[in-house]
Amino acid sequence: MPVYTVSHVDNVRICVVMVGLPARGKSLMSQKIVRYLNWLSISSKSFNVGSYRRRQKQQPTAEFFDENNEEGLDTRNRALEMALKDMLTWFNEKNGTVGVLDASNTTRERRKKILELLRLNKIEPMFLESYCDNNEIIMNNILDVKTTSPDYQGVNPDFAIKDFLKRITKYEQVYEPLNMSTDSDLTFIKLINVNAQIIINKIQTYLESRIVYFIMNLHIKPRTIWLSRHGESSYNLEGKIGGDSDLSERGFKYAKNLPELVSRYIPNNENLEVWTSTLKRTQQTAQYLDYPKKTWKALDELDAGVCDGLTYEEIQKLYPEDFKMRDENKFEYRYRGGESYRDVIIRLEPIIMNLENQENILLITHQAVLRCLYAYFMNVPQEESPWMKIPLHTLIKLDPRAFDTLVTKIKADIPAVSTYKEKGTTKLGEGDDAKFNIAGDIVT
Amino acid sequence: MPVYTVSHVDNVRICVVMVGLPARGKSLMSQKIVRYLNWLSISSKSFNVGSYRRRQKQQPTAEFFDENNEEGLDTRNRALEMALKDMLTWFNEKNGTVGVLDASNTTRERRKKILELLRLNKIEPMFLESYCDNNEIIMNNILDVKTTSPDYQGVNPDFAIKDFLKRITKYEQVYEPLNMSTDSDLTFIKLINVNAQIIINKIQTYLESRIVYFIMNLHIKPRTIWLSRHGESSYNLEGKIGGDSDLSERGFKYAKNLPELVSRYIPNNENLEVWTSTLKRTQQTAQYLDYPKKTWKALDELDAGVCDGLTYEEIQKLYPEDFKMRDENKFEYRYRGGESYRDVIIRLEPIIMNLENQENILLITHQAVLRCLYAYFMNVPQEESPWMKIPLHTLIKLDPRAFDTLVTKIKADIPAVSTYKEKGTTKLGEGDDAKFNIAGDIVT
Repeated sequence: MPVYTVSHVDNVRICVVMVGLPARGKSLMSQKIVRYLNWLSISSKSFNVGSYRRRQKQQPTAEFFDENNEEGLDTRNRALEMALKDMLTWFNEKNGTVGVLDASNTTRERRKKILELLRLNKIEPMFLESYCDNNEIIMNNILDVKTTSPDYQGVNPDFAIKDFLKRITKYEQVYEPLNMSTDSDLTFIKLINVNAQIIINKIQTYLESRIVYFIMNLHIKPRTIWLSRHGESSYNLEGKIGGDSDLSERGFKYAKNLPELVSRYIPNNENLEVWTSTLKRTQQTAQYLDYPKKTWKALDELDAGVCDGLTYEEIQKLYPEDFKMRDENKFEYRYRGGESYRDVIIRLEPIIMNLENQENILLITHQAVLRCLYAYFMNVPQEESPWMKIPLHTLIKLDPRAFDTLVTKIKADIPAVSTYKEKGTTKLGEGDDAKFNIAGDIVT
Repeated sequence: MPVYTVSHVDNVRICVVMVGLPARGKSLMSQKIVRYLNWLSISSKSFNVGSYRRRQKQQPTAEFFDENNEEGLDTRNRALEMALKDMLTWFNEKNGTVGVLDASNTTRERRKKILELLRLNKIEPMFLESYCDNNEIIMNNILDVKTTSPDYQGVNPDFAIKDFLKRITKYEQVYEPLNMSTDSDLTFIKLINVNAQIIINKIQTYLESRIVYFIMNLHIKPRTIWLSRHGESSYNLEGKIGGDSDLSERGFKYAKNLPELVSRYIPNNENLEVWTSTLKRTQQTAQYLDYPKKTWKALDELDAGVCDGLTYEEIQKLYPEDFKMRDENKFEYRYRGGESYRDVIIRLEPIIMNLENQENILLITHQAVLRCLYAYFMNVPQEESPWMKIPLHTLIKLDPRAFDTLVTKIKADIPAVSTYKEKGTTKLGEGDDAKFNIAGDIVT
């Protein structure tokens, strides 16, 4: 029987239709929504109309986006149609739940056309407009776009900025923002200057309200998220899982070393908060850090139920069927009387929501929990995340950027056992040399 | 070390300042916010200015509320001052976190005065306006007020409605709604016709965003929440706690009886969804109900950690210290490797948020979980909720009304053991005769 995440809603298909001028953070928001929902096992996908247009026309100049440029209009309409067609196929053939139509959709006529198509296909339209008249935010976005958009790859930066500003004016000439009186029959969210002001119209389903809540908590202030496992514990030394044991001697060394590791990157006057689980090994690891601390039950290690306190050899011997089933589908497998990775993600969701709202946070927690948190920030698929290597005595620094997250791994010079179990064996890894091995990591 | 709920924010004190004409559901919203936050252990209290006014002037007619009635103005100003004074005392002496100032606060001048006082006292003001021009909603609210307000107790109903409508016009003459341009420097939420449209301005902290999210999920459609424990299980018969045992013979009888019990109250064509935990005994109890079903890990029984599967006698013998500590503070006590009632509430929070958004739901779950859910709906204080009697083989029907919840308890004619342990003993109760004993229950 399927276990429902708190966000799951049956038989509802939603299309988030983005609205807004270029450089208003639409693509960034689209990607964040998709990442968050997929992490919660709500099947989501973004369809970026710009990339469909690029299949026909690469690196156009601003003139291409003029409403009187017929070739431009034709190409852009075709791109929209291709994106919509792919989206409908995805909804129907891949059982999609939330599709995001990432385009400017600045005219009422355009939105009406999309609306009709969605209604015809029994997909709920939810418009999400990013309206922005704060020049600082716009210029920051333009600088991001200039460095990340394929439209300006290899182009002289000064020309790129000038051309992009011109492109924006082309859109401005036809822009009809969403409006409380004329659009009152639509389900929409209008963000004004990121989330300084938010207008929410006719939000009805729980899933829609969750998307709104998520967006409400996003901010664009630069910040760093730090992740660390607790120091090596005596259970780690014995190869046992779970429990609530103390740190080993080397684990205590790591705890003592942590303030110095952190201080290499955090100036003295910078705010930082340390979050631990309720288990002794994380609190002992945090003990020398001179920052405000919080303890969360939701950060406790995956509950191994009847297998708590056993070694992998013992589990294989006592519960051979379970041992096999877990290797076959580690994400879904729930320990008898315990949890699955999916269960952990559901209880971590409020932590993620809170994290999105915070600034610098250091989380000292456990292997499985860190895999789930890391998967969120790095967009790691469910099949892979339970198999990620997250070694002991290593501090991970995550710097979220516009379209990716910069990862820095700082290894303390203190040996520790490996707790990494390869699929199909009971053997643990080779010690603290285990490497992170997820495609897409940006490791500095 | 304290364990943080997902909503806790250190060192932030918030005053939710209600704004709106009479009969706009302000008091109802105030009470719901306070109930929700207190349930999450965020110390909250509502200060209703009307009840301070009634200490000086009971049952005034509409003329009393005219802006030119000096006696009325004086009395009302004094009432506001008394309410504010009590609120500040509460913030300072009782470590209050969220105070709600429940009054109409319809003029800009009045709001400015409140704002200045709050800023002076380092309390963050968050205005919450309920704006409503939908006559159906207003008339429904008026009928509620007529029957529940002490201002019209014992008064002829026709006169009460007429006078109340007149009172509203007195307020309308001076009403200055919150406005995106003139109030853009304030943190505010403006609800238009309940939550058909919501305007959110300058929401900054996580706690504020949670309050917004909660309000966003409220609806006013009538609905019923049903609660039931699973049928008697074989562990219940043996006096063991926790585990994942099957139903006893009598438990299966209850499961077979449930559809008939439910159908007495639910017409055939009415929507109902059945939610169970992941444990066998709840799913076996739900098996004969012909409604859509969902399984939630968050509805699993309080995790008794090392005590799982033991009887109370065994727990007292093996963990005498723990046994005593639990009786002394049952809400906070966390089983070794398991959970406390506080922990259960934190994991139930998404369920509550989802429930607020839904219509008719039947939850089949466990003793401790039901105590927490019941405490939410019935506003039962933390000290009492872990000691509530929620017997087996009894269906509870909760009908939320404007200012309270109507409780109906439907006992199936199938005996079951009692699982109720009195404080300070290991003995269980007298069987299924155990009564609910919470003051304030409205039992029909």
